[in-house]
Amino acid sequence: MPGKFYGLGVGPGDPELLTLKALRVLQQVPVIAVPVSQRGEESLAFLVARPYLRPEQEILSLFMPMSRDRNYLERAWDAAAGELIEKLKQGLDVAFLTLGDASLYSTYSYLMERIKIWLPEAEIETVPGITSFAAAAARLNLPLAKGDELLAIVPLLKNPEELTRLLPIFPNLVLMKVARQYDAIVRVLQESDRAKYAVLVSRCGQDGEYFSRNLEAGIGKKQDYLSLIIVKGAEKQ
Amino acid sequence: MPGKFYGLGVGPGDPELLTLKALRVLQQVPVIAVPVSQRGEESLAFLVARPYLRPEQEILSLFMPMSRDRNYLERAWDAAAGELIEKLKQGLDVAFLTLGDASLYSTYSYLMERIKIWLPEAEIETVPGITSFAAAAARLNLPLAKGDELLAIVPLLKNPEELTRLLPIFPNLVLMKVARQYDAIVRVLQESDRAKYAVLVSRCGQDGEYFSRNLEAGIGKKQDYLSLIIVKGAEKQ
Repeated sequence: MPGKFYGLGVGPGDPELLTLKALRVLQQVPVIAVPVSQRGEESLAFLVARPYLRPEQEILSLFMPMSRDRNYLERAWDAAAGELIEKLKQGLDVAFLTLGDASLYSTYSYLMERIKIWLPEAEIETVPGITSFAAAAARLNLPLAKGDELLAIVPLLKNPEELTRLLPIFPNLVLMKVARQYDAIVRVLQESDRAKYAVLVSRCGQDGEYFSRNLEAGIGKKQDYLSLIIVKGAEKQ
Repeated sequence: MPGKFYGLGVGPGDPELLTLKALRVLQQVPVIAVPVSQRGEESLAFLVARPYLRPEQEILSLFMPMSRDRNYLERAWDAAAGELIEKLKQGLDVAFLTLGDASLYSTYSYLMERIKIWLPEAEIETVPGITSFAAAAARLNLPLAKGDELLAIVPLLKNPEELTRLLPIFPNLVLMKVARQYDAIVRVLQESDRAKYAVLVSRCGQDGEYFSRNLEAGIGKKQDYLSLIIVKGAEKQ
């Protein structure tokens, strides 16, 4: 029997935002798999988990690069899944750590898909986590959506003009990873008269946490990679 | 000094999906405020919290009705906020329990808004929680969204035809509270050829948990109030 593969959402960065279930799994598995990239932001998942780990647990670092080259990514995910399968075949349970929620924009999804196919007899369990935007809204005491209002989650805008078709439909939007397109996004929000109902949140719950309701002031400046913008509607907040 | 007001997201129903932070707050406050309605589904938040409570903690039941009559709702929220403020003015910290996440479709938002205005000196802290749809996706080992895919959260469709403008834009959608409009929603998904990429989830993580990838089979049947549909795109899953 192979070991069990867990995907653990460890939440947005505050170790107290781990769930009781994630904590239990974290402490019971012999192998903790941690995504690492050159940029280093994924190893934040390990920093969140570290206070809870025991010295005898094995840490398996998996190279999960950031790239626009899909073939390169696929090969890296293949290699990482191979390393996981090696441990699982030894009968060891493995928990893969992922920031935020494990089902939402996580490299865990790519590994899980491969393990389903390559080691179908392995049991897989996904443990959900608190998303960055839920933590940001909570930190600001700001409703993300109320009543029957729609909410759009926009992970990364390749072309900020795409926002123009979403803004009229959605009273609430979460724009994630806005750093690279920040200036263009703010201009689209200004043109749609929604900039004044938006708030920038950077590194929520972490060192260097930063909020701004003046999006204009951030134009031309470097934004942190872990920045998001919550956009609200024009109606009363 | 008034007491501190907490909004606690207790997650989707599984007591293990509470965060460490929600647990700490739950155990340290003298007053636990619990929403109750005639239908009873909100008191589920209390059932989630109950295993962790101490006998000396006061339970304050607040009537938070379900209604389409906005004036009636506003009066109920006013009354509930008044009861909370009475406790806060006594210097007592109060934690209001809410299923799922506290910032997303929670009656907590309406209470928080009132306390901000009526007792501005009170400190307010929102503690995020696991949403029903994150738990459902995790339970199914199903990515909610990957890479740069958009995700739409649709809380309640008054008119299921509204879906037709969202489906072409969004590869991933979460349709919450689908019970009342179930048949019409399934027909719109069928017409858009998306029904085969959809899954119905009822009472995730609770007694009577139910999943179905055959949405057609549920037509004409009564669906549980706590049902949602996750709709995926036509591309490879």
